[in-house]
Amino acid sequence: MKAKEVKAFGTEAADAALEQLNIQRRNPTPHDVEIEILYCGVCHSDLHTARNEWHSTVYPCVPGHEIVGRVTRVGSHVTKFKEGDLAAVGCMVDSCHECDYCNEGLEQYCAEGNTGTYNSPDTHLGTHTFGGYSESIVVNEGFVLRVPDNLDLAATAPLLCAGITTYSPLKKWNVGPGQKVGVVGLGGLGHMAVKIAKAMGADVIVFTTSPSKVEDAKRLGADDVVLSKDADQMARYAGKLHFVLDAVSAQHDINAYLNLLRVDGSLVLVGAPEQPLPVAAFSLIPFRRSFAGSMIGGIAETQEMLDFCGKHNIVSDIEMIDMQQINEAYERLLKGDVKYRFVIDMASLKNKDARPSHQES
Amino acid sequence: MKAKEVKAFGTEAADAALEQLNIQRRNPTPHDVEIEILYCGVCHSDLHTARNEWHSTVYPCVPGHEIVGRVTRVGSHVTKFKEGDLAAVGCMVDSCHECDYCNEGLEQYCAEGNTGTYNSPDTHLGTHTFGGYSESIVVNEGFVLRVPDNLDLAATAPLLCAGITTYSPLKKWNVGPGQKVGVVGLGGLGHMAVKIAKAMGADVIVFTTSPSKVEDAKRLGADDVVLSKDADQMARYAGKLHFVLDAVSAQHDINAYLNLLRVDGSLVLVGAPEQPLPVAAFSLIPFRRSFAGSMIGGIAETQEMLDFCGKHNIVSDIEMIDMQQINEAYERLLKGDVKYRFVIDMASLKNKDARPSHQES
Repeated sequence: MKAKEVKAFGTEAADAALEQLNIQRRNPTPHDVEIEILYCGVCHSDLHTARNEWHSTVYPCVPGHEIVGRVTRVGSHVTKFKEGDLAAVGCMVDSCHECDYCNEGLEQYCAEGNTGTYNSPDTHLGTHTFGGYSESIVVNEGFVLRVPDNLDLAATAPLLCAGITTYSPLKKWNVGPGQKVGVVGLGGLGHMAVKIAKAMGADVIVFTTSPSKVEDAKRLGADDVVLSKDADQMARYAGKLHFVLDAVSAQHDINAYLNLLRVDGSLVLVGAPEQPLPVAAFSLIPFRRSFAGSMIGGIAETQEMLDFCGKHNIVSDIEMIDMQQINEAYERLLKGDVKYRFVIDMASLKNKDARPSHQES
Repeated sequence: MKAKEVKAFGTEAADAALEQLNIQRRNPTPHDVEIEILYCGVCHSDLHTARNEWHSTVYPCVPGHEIVGRVTRVGSHVTKFKEGDLAAVGCMVDSCHECDYCNEGLEQYCAEGNTGTYNSPDTHLGTHTFGGYSESIVVNEGFVLRVPDNLDLAATAPLLCAGITTYSPLKKWNVGPGQKVGVVGLGGLGHMAVKIAKAMGADVIVFTTSPSKVEDAKRLGADDVVLSKDADQMARYAGKLHFVLDAVSAQHDINAYLNLLRVDGSLVLVGAPEQPLPVAAFSLIPFRRSFAGSMIGGIAETQEMLDFCGKHNIVSDIEMIDMQQINEAYERLLKGDVKYRFVIDMASLKNKDARPSHQES
C-alpha cells in the first residue's frame, strides 16, 4: 500500500523521552479522509501508553487521540467530507462493523476490540496505529467527526476524549433538569463534566480535595463545591444526589460517594484507579444504588456531543503548548498542574526542521 | 391502646435460644387487619436479628417476616379484606406515607425508614414490632397482601421475602425473553430467582460452588449450571450474560461475576457479605457494566409478585418445621442445610401449652 512519510513525536521505549521521528501515513483509500492535524489534546492515557504503564505498548509509540484539523484529501467514495473541511478524530479509527455492539453504535465496546487511534494493529500498513502527535492522519470517513464552526478549534480538541468520556455517561444515565449531579475530581475530565452537566440542565456539585479549586469550580458553572475531606460538608449531600460522575484515577473511598446517592442513583467511574475499590454491600442494597463504569462513546454519540457543545458553546479550558514541550507537559500532568487540558499547537511540529530519529520502513 | 396477649417464639438476648413467650397485639384500629398466622418462613435475617449480628436488635426479639394466614378481624374502614380471607405480610408493616419514595411505591426505601415487621419502633403500643413467629399479627391494611388461592399456602410464605427480593431486581432490570441471566448461589433466594427468571422467559445459568447442587439447579429450571471454581466453565460465559443476580452472603470475588456481563449488563447483589467487595475499575469501564444492590420490593410490587407467582404456579421449595424446632433449624441454616426454605407450621405453637417466659406490659 502506498504511503508517505510525515513528521511525528513519539517514543521508542517506556523510559525514553518523546522526540521527533518520522512515521508512514497511507494514501487515502476510497473511503479515507486525510487530515492535516492543527491541534491535538494531551490525555493522561497518552502518558500511560508512552510509558507502558498498561503493559501493552508497542514501540515506537506516537500518542494523541484528541485530534482536530483540516481535510487535505478524500478518497473517491467519501461523501461526508471534502478538502478544506474542519474534521476531528477521537480515540478510535476503526472497529469490526459486524458485532452487536458496532451495530448498536457502540463501537467503543466492539466485540473484536476497536482500533485505537494509537497503539492498535494497523491492518492497512501492517504496523500499528500512530496518534495525533503528528502532521497528518488518514482515517476511514466513518470514524471522522464534523466540527462545529463556532467553537475555538484548539479548545475543541479535548472534546474528542475528555468531552465524550463525560458526555456519554451523563446522557446514558439521563442527566437533566431537576437533578443534582455530583462531579468528583476537577481535572481534564471533571471540568468538562461540569460544563456539560450544567448545559444539560442539572444542578452540579463539585467534590474536590483542593480548597484552591473551589473558586474555579464555581467559575466553570458548579452550583456548589464540597471539600471532600470535610465530613460535615459531605454529610450535607448524603442521599441527595441523582447521579455522580467520578473522574478520579487515584485510590479513593468510593463508599463515601455512593452514600451521596439517592435511591436508584448511579455513580459512574470514568477515571481508572489501579487497585480495586472496596464496595460495601450496604452502600448499594438499602438504596438500590448502582456503581458503574463508562468508556468514551460511540461515533454517532461523539458527533452528537460535538453538536451539543457547538450549540451550547462548550469547549475545554486549555493551555497551549508546542510539540517540543510535551515531556515537560507530561511531568506537569503527573502533578495535576494544568487548567485543564494541554493542547499541542501542531504548527510547532511543522515549523521546525525534521530531526528524524526513527525511520519506518 | 387496647391489646391482647398472644403466644410467640423469641429470644431475650443475642446468645439465648429462642423460646416461647407472650407478646401484646393491638386490637385492630379502623384501618387494621388481624391475621391468624398459619405459616411463617425462616429467613437468614431472622437469625441475624435474633443474634444481634447487625448490632441493632431490641429484646425481646420475635423474628419472622414471611407470613401467611387468615383474616380474623378487620377494622371498620378496611375495604381490601374481610374475615376469612387469606392474607400475607412481608418485611414491612408501615412507612411514612409522605416521602418521595413512599409516593413512588418504594416504601422499602422510605426516607424515614420503613417500619420493619420486627425490631422496629411500634408507634401503636410504644414498644417495638414483633414478627411472625407468633399466633397472630395486626397490620395496617395498606401493608397486607392478597394471596393467590391456587398456591400451596405454606410454600407461599417465603415469597414474602425471598420471592420479592429476587422478583424486584429481575423486574426492575427488565429481565425477559432472549436474555441470559446468571444466578449466583443456590439457596433460599437463589432458588426463587431461578424459578422467577425462568417464568419471565430468560435463559437461566446457575453458578454454584457445590457439585451436589447441579442436578437440583436443573430440576428447578436452570438451563445450565456452572461450577464457579472451574475457570474453564466460567470462561464459557465471559461477556455473555445480560444480568446477574448475586444471592451470596459470604465473601466472594465479585469481579469474576462482573466479567460475565455483556456491555450494559448489571450485576445486582441481594446477599450482603460482611466485608466490602473489591471491585476493579476495569471490570466496569470497558463494558459499561453496573454493580448494584436491591432490597425487597414495594407493597404494590410485592402484590404484583404474588399475582405473578399465582399465574405461573411458583412457590418456594420448603421444609416444614414445628415452632419448637427453630433453634435446630437456625443451626442447619448456618450450614446451608435446607432445601430451600424452612417454613414454620404455626399450628405447632398454638397446640402446645403456653409457657410464658416474658410478660409484655
